[in-house]
Amino acid sequence: MSQNIYDTAEFFENYSQLDRSQHGLDGAPEWPRIQTLLPPDLTGFRILDLGCGFGWFTRWARDRGAAHVHGIDLSANMLAGARERTAASALGSERISYQRADLEGIQLPEADAGAYDLAYSSLALHYLVDLPALIAQVHRVLKPGARFVFTIEHPIWTAPSRPGRRVDPDTGSQYWPLDEYQAEGLRVTSWLVEGFRKQHRTMTTYVNAFLDAGFEITGFNEWYPNEEEAKLYPGWVVSERIKPTFLLMSVKKK
Amino acid sequence: MSQNIYDTAEFFENYSQLDRSQHGLDGAPEWPRIQTLLPPDLTGFRILDLGCGFGWFTRWARDRGAAHVHGIDLSANMLAGARERTAASALGSERISYQRADLEGIQLPEADAGAYDLAYSSLALHYLVDLPALIAQVHRVLKPGARFVFTIEHPIWTAPSRPGRRVDPDTGSQYWPLDEYQAEGLRVTSWLVEGFRKQHRTMTTYVNAFLDAGFEITGFNEWYPNEEEAKLYPGWVVSERIKPTFLLMSVKKK
Repeated sequence: MSQNIYDTAEFFENYSQLDRSQHGLDGAPEWPRIQTLLPPDLTGFRILDLGCGFGWFTRWARDRGAAHVHGIDLSANMLAGARERTAASALGSERISYQRADLEGIQLPEADAGAYDLAYSSLALHYLVDLPALIAQVHRVLKPGARFVFTIEHPIWTAPSRPGRRVDPDTGSQYWPLDEYQAEGLRVTSWLVEGFRKQHRTMTTYVNAFLDAGFEITGFNEWYPNEEEAKLYPGWVVSERIKPTFLLMSVKKK
Repeated sequence: MSQNIYDTAEFFENYSQLDRSQHGLDGAPEWPRIQTLLPPDLTGFRILDLGCGFGWFTRWARDRGAAHVHGIDLSANMLAGARERTAASALGSERISYQRADLEGIQLPEADAGAYDLAYSSLALHYLVDLPALIAQVHRVLKPGARFVFTIEHPIWTAPSRPGRRVDPDTGSQYWPLDEYQAEGLRVTSWLVEGFRKQHRTMTTYVNAFLDAGFEITGFNEWYPNEEEAKLYPGWVVSERIKPTFLLMSVKKK
């Protein structure tokens, strides 16, 4: 059972204030780069959105012509928000379904084998203890040649025992105190609240989990602002130049 | 033109004292893991060894039944050592050739298009300014389906402006002062001598250079001692647990 921190009051209230909660996809700095990994045309696609949260991507994909988008999330709070925003959106709940479920240990329906044209997951996979189990499920429900596009907290971001930017007293410059990179497992950190739990894995473990499951790697991006974004948001350069926070990948069912 | 530091007296003398120089492949901690990325049977293979150094891999592959192994290196010192050891080896110079050339900007012969069954490179690609140029050459001379197995200094290892393990004064524990990860380019460091030059690239740049050239990623390993190795060499755990030093990859010409 995953930590359902999104259904605790203090965390949810803080999370709801983030740009990515208030402004959706356009409030997520990594979104423009995610789009480069997505298929250019979603018309008629059946799409699975794993960890759909407020359903921003679910609705976006539907509005781009997907035949059906199925969003799954553990948090009742998030799904209530998703349903509310969906009802209020131009197309309402047309071609969208939501399901409350823990991605940890989830069994997708046998009837869905080979049914999906795209799987998507934004910043959810690093919560899972048994990642290969989920990857196997996704592989099973995708059509051959279909993609799984996902983002995770980068292994460099999840690794440190005491994460946070530090200042070198000798030079005054910033660094990221990387340690414990090869020590995979639970990290309990402070993000919005104390006691935020996630799993650290090396890049090796992530890449091989997909290769071993029968996926081919088709896209790979450690998010960093491009020149235009850097001008608009110089703070992003300050925080991201020293280390990547987000890893974006696209893999294809062989 | 690459820095030819292996042909300077002090560096070469220091390099010659390393375990990997004295004991060859068995003196390189990452070698057992490299072997897992190599094809299990090299019988009849035509192999290209890029940055062959003292020719340890060149001779090993020949001794495993390769039809021919061609080693390329910039350093006259290294090639002299390779030729000497080759002459003294059981099979002499049979089925081996050496060439002195800079991998930066190298043009492999037109006649070799589609000729090689395997390309190999140990700890050389991070010296190159124009990596895509070399990758395109390697892609051209490989047979379809043939692999390029290589190792590089890991981007986490090459990134810092002031590399080196540090001790956190508060906890007494070690960390790696990661900074400048997204700032690619020249790094001038101290390794064996002052003024050792190499190129830092992100993982994104490495992975996409191969994807863009028409390679599929087939193997990926951030070297770390396994349990048995950790017992024999506890110092490796001390240095590697905080951050990876070596990245090992295998890619396949599509």
